[in-house]
Amino acid sequence: MEITLFHDRMKSITNEKLELLLKFMETEKLDLIMITDSEQSRDLNFQYICGHPTDGILFITAGGETTLIPWDTALAKTEADVDRILDHTQYEYSTIKTSRDYFENILKKPNASIGVSRGMLYGEIIRFETMFPELKFTKEPSKISRLFEELRATKSNHEMDLLMEATKIAEDTLQDIIHFAKNATTESEQDLSFLVQTKMAKRGAEDLAFPSLVANTNRSHTLHCHPYATESQFALPGLALIDFGAKYKGYNSDITQSFTFGDINQEQQRMRDITQKAYDAAVETMEIGIPLWKINKASMDVLTEAGFSMPYALGHGLGLSEHDAPFISKKPTDDFQKKYWKEVLLEEGHVFTIEPGTYKEDFGGLRIENDFMVRNGKIIQLTHTGIYPIE
Amino acid sequence: MEITLFHDRMKSITNEKLELLLKFMETEKLDLIMITDSEQSRDLNFQYICGHPTDGILFITAGGETTLIPWDTALAKTEADVDRILDHTQYEYSTIKTSRDYFENILKKPNASIGVSRGMLYGEIIRFETMFPELKFTKEPSKISRLFEELRATKSNHEMDLLMEATKIAEDTLQDIIHFAKNATTESEQDLSFLVQTKMAKRGAEDLAFPSLVANTNRSHTLHCHPYATESQFALPGLALIDFGAKYKGYNSDITQSFTFGDINQEQQRMRDITQKAYDAAVETMEIGIPLWKINKASMDVLTEAGFSMPYALGHGLGLSEHDAPFISKKPTDDFQKKYWKEVLLEEGHVFTIEPGTYKEDFGGLRIENDFMVRNGKIIQLTHTGIYPIE
Repeated sequence: MEITLFHDRMKSITNEKLELLLKFMETEKLDLIMITDSEQSRDLNFQYICGHPTDGILFITAGGETTLIPWDTALAKTEADVDRILDHTQYEYSTIKTSRDYFENILKKPNASIGVSRGMLYGEIIRFETMFPELKFTKEPSKISRLFEELRATKSNHEMDLLMEATKIAEDTLQDIIHFAKNATTESEQDLSFLVQTKMAKRGAEDLAFPSLVANTNRSHTLHCHPYATESQFALPGLALIDFGAKYKGYNSDITQSFTFGDINQEQQRMRDITQKAYDAAVETMEIGIPLWKINKASMDVLTEAGFSMPYALGHGLGLSEHDAPFISKKPTDDFQKKYWKEVLLEEGHVFTIEPGTYKEDFGGLRIENDFMVRNGKIIQLTHTGIYPIE
Repeated sequence: MEITLFHDRMKSITNEKLELLLKFMETEKLDLIMITDSEQSRDLNFQYICGHPTDGILFITAGGETTLIPWDTALAKTEADVDRILDHTQYEYSTIKTSRDYFENILKKPNASIGVSRGMLYGEIIRFETMFPELKFTKEPSKISRLFEELRATKSNHEMDLLMEATKIAEDTLQDIIHFAKNATTESEQDLSFLVQTKMAKRGAEDLAFPSLVANTNRSHTLHCHPYATESQFALPGLALIDFGAKYKGYNSDITQSFTFGDINQEQQRMRDITQKAYDAAVETMEIGIPLWKINKASMDVLTEAGFSMPYALGHGLGLSEHDAPFISKKPTDDFQKKYWKEVLLEEGHVFTIEPGTYKEDFGGLRIENDFMVRNGKIIQLTHTGIYPIE
């Protein structure tokens, strides 16, 4: 098996993982993997493989040769680490015509078997199937997606270094948030949002990991408040939270700090205690080698017993995406997901969140979300948020 | 044809357009349209139809009855304008199980013909086809997408009012940008990015339309600079630009202001003149009733003749998406796109950008991008950017 050696540009995939990818292609009898990334559907596997941040089509042959059709060729010249760039402006700006040249004159396998992920757009797969009826596109995109999930779930040392920096920027910004909350009077959710953004930029973040969710007690019961931050007063009596993270060289952190303002009522006190208990249960359950669904279950049991439900997984991986593999979630309940589900054990290289919460209309919501990393045989807690009481 | 009357909540689609949608379903013999919106693939048609901003599955029957499976039920209760909400937490958090209840006990059409758009994920359509083999999902998602494009291309008065506010916020912020550029010494791209964000928030923007692209002369030749803004000095001698917009109640503006700093060389002067000429050519060509591809051609001819190529369309609509219908682009060159292409004439309700640019490695890039609206029979220029020279 011939492997194309990579150049010295920044890229996330290691040669070791590339070998796993090529081995998978061999087992599945795939001649090609095709990854598309566009404004309408972002596929981080694209950046993971070739380093190019955004917008284009990437081909990887069974021999490991990579070809990129970027939307912005100038950007690709500085960012992409591939063997070949095809410039679609030379093909009447048509990605179909560019791809045709690739299939017919470079790949030269008229009936090639092609793997695509579940993140490809339905309209795109139909367009390619219609224009290249001789090519065989996989009918099981979930298989390809699961492979990428597996590859990306364990981070390389280089990736872990970047994630440590991304989490440190968020962790250091906690002091600014708590200072803001302690002194807040009429300041708005938006004021806190800007404060966090500017402080993280000063600490080296290239961007937010995602728009910070800042919710006062009137909005904190929604899972992802909308809009992200308003001009309403943040420090209203009750339950409030800010969910935020830093992006550092493409890698993301994600944490939530909660607050209680003033005297909270009995149900709100119960929510505070249950959230803390659900969080502690997860942390106490964590050990290397444990199935991830068991960590999820530890928290969920606490919540369920107290009458709360949480329509999201307890935690998720961190990486190029702020919602990366692995997923700390329950075993799937429907047959389709069961088919592609595999038990994942906590292992070296996992970087992830734990984020239980309680949400109740008319009472508000609370969440404790911290970031963890398994490195050198140890589970390291990278951030230290909680529920902060302010009289 | 029975039409479900809408409640008084904010929603973009009008009853008149809903009738067109139902008429289309009748012609295409569709029992149901299904729209999915998730983190991995945003489909603004979702919000357009039901007002719920994000994350869920929406069903619209041929009779106009709407059912929503939201990820966040609490958010749906305040935002969604639908006839029915199904809470997936009551179905073991499985959207498949929730959908099964909908198909079997509410829709009750075992062999229903279902329209989905090209923005659905390939993995999702495979999942639904596998789990519900008796249902017939369309093999022509582009037809459904084209219909939504047509509906969304012309804005209602309510939508135009929101877009006027979104463009006004951006337009008013130009004075801050020019003041910054005139006085800039060592200030960074990031400093300008923050300035624009805070000024637009103070003027009522709920968010940025998209992360502002701020590029000094070393980066302005790329189409979408990456990262969006860096700590590098903005006012370096040469060509620089900022591409930004405001989001106001869900609706987006999008403009670009360019700068020349110091003495620019002959080629850079030529780029400035060509960009202006290409922009003027488009504006002079615009008139109600003209095919949009002709406006694109007017600019492109100027650029091509001068040896420049532009791998994007001259302009795009503005709306719930910052890249909305209609598209001011050339006639398609590949057979697949030709199949679904229709000539669109400039008409009442169109709100769009015109944004020609010139880009050249080692010289930089320039773009003039302004927003226009056709209202009450007149083409109105809503914003007034250009290429600003700073000695």
